[in-house]
Amino acid sequence: MLTIVKIGGNIIDDKDKLTSFLKCFAALEGKKILVHGGGKIATDIGLKLGVQPNYAEGRRITDSTTLDLVTMVYGGLINKNVVAALQSEGCNAIGLTGADGNLIKAGKRAVVNIDYGFVGDVETGGVNTGVLDTLLKADLVPVFAALTYDSQQGGLLNTNADTIARILAMSMAGQEEVRLVYCFEKDGVLNEDQSVIPCIRPADLERLKANGVIKEGMIPKLVNACEAVEAGVKKVVIGNAMNFEDIIKGVSGTEIV
Amino acid sequence: MLTIVKIGGNIIDDKDKLTSFLKCFAALEGKKILVHGGGKIATDIGLKLGVQPNYAEGRRITDSTTLDLVTMVYGGLINKNVVAALQSEGCNAIGLTGADGNLIKAGKRAVVNIDYGFVGDVETGGVNTGVLDTLLKADLVPVFAALTYDSQQGGLLNTNADTIARILAMSMAGQEEVRLVYCFEKDGVLNEDQSVIPCIRPADLERLKANGVIKEGMIPKLVNACEAVEAGVKKVVIGNAMNFEDIIKGVSGTEIV
Repeated sequence: MLTIVKIGGNIIDDKDKLTSFLKCFAALEGKKILVHGGGKIATDIGLKLGVQPNYAEGRRITDSTTLDLVTMVYGGLINKNVVAALQSEGCNAIGLTGADGNLIKAGKRAVVNIDYGFVGDVETGGVNTGVLDTLLKADLVPVFAALTYDSQQGGLLNTNADTIARILAMSMAGQEEVRLVYCFEKDGVLNEDQSVIPCIRPADLERLKANGVIKEGMIPKLVNACEAVEAGVKKVVIGNAMNFEDIIKGVSGTEIV
Repeated sequence: MLTIVKIGGNIIDDKDKLTSFLKCFAALEGKKILVHGGGKIATDIGLKLGVQPNYAEGRRITDSTTLDLVTMVYGGLINKNVVAALQSEGCNAIGLTGADGNLIKAGKRAVVNIDYGFVGDVETGGVNTGVLDTLLKADLVPVFAALTYDSQQGGLLNTNADTIARILAMSMAGQEEVRLVYCFEKDGVLNEDQSVIPCIRPADLERLKANGVIKEGMIPKLVNACEAVEAGVKKVVIGNAMNFEDIIKGVSGTEIV
């Protein structure tokens, strides 16, 4: 069993929560991969450097200055500190981007009305499962920053961390049982009364969207989750990073099966 | 034969020279490792972020803000762009710090008169040759930023890149023939008439220091080189990054044997 865990920016931004999560992640047995998002720190450092955040339809536009910023912050500051923290918990982490080991190739997003700049879209075939397998078999724990390699133009591309986690899970599902865990600041997918929906089938997705239970940022997360399950990933769970042990035990979060 | 190459900050700072060097490095056959220094870019970005460079006896003091800065710039911006550039030349690079894969453990430098802060001193036994060997056998090309893992306190430490290259070379010399190449902006160790000294034996070192041929920054570089040769590294060459092919052919640079 391979467990792939994605942690969101809200956890990255909160030092105590991050430390607590990493301790639990380090203790998880078996093969595992961590994918982390960015958090507010890139925006904060960017503003100090005179890089104004630029959004179109709620998504960040990555010009070359912003690409340098996220390469520094996601690929350097956050990634290497997460790796060092895991090492201090006895977990042999290795920090990576998609360029390292040619691990995740992407294509620069085509301009349709909006030019998102250096943003990469990944495909299942873009994952170098051979190198990933070598690392896992050597008992290393890959920790991915959300950056991919531009297979056409060379260079790095900014890529959604949820998508990277899904693509890694789908790519590895061909050779072993994969469990994908999306950790964020809520306890799972919530009903209108804030109770956790324990289980969602991909077939439920359209209904939940139509009746407004699932909205905004939860929609792409669930679309990713459903796509992963439909492509052979054994189980996807969406839950609170602070409940990681319970998520692993199967007693917390929303399962997509 | 394993070739370990260190490139200095002057090459990192010059985009054209860096591109040209990386093309030659990518073309080098056999197992290889690249170690890179920092360059002025960390200072430039630091000044924009309000981080004042702080030196004592010519060496940078690394407080926690400076450690974050070099983690971003060395471990993120420079390292990942070097990796992406090598990938575009068909070289399967993997960017690393000493924390990744528990590869290079160091001890925080003890305070004797001056507190250098988060600066690490490495020992031969601190290199995880098993993981390094796994990466090399998988045809990956490790690219190291000059950061190590603090084995006592956890966290990252800023470490001299020349020293990292030497320690890697000495550690791997036990299991295979190792060649260590220090690339910088000069054609080698120069006589007073600026001609290149083609060959230096460790026994010559004291004399060359005493008569002033070797001075300033060249002294620690040559001390590293001599120490490596004395510890079983087959050959050390100091030369110009722009002459990399000729250095490899043995017709450029200063050999320490």
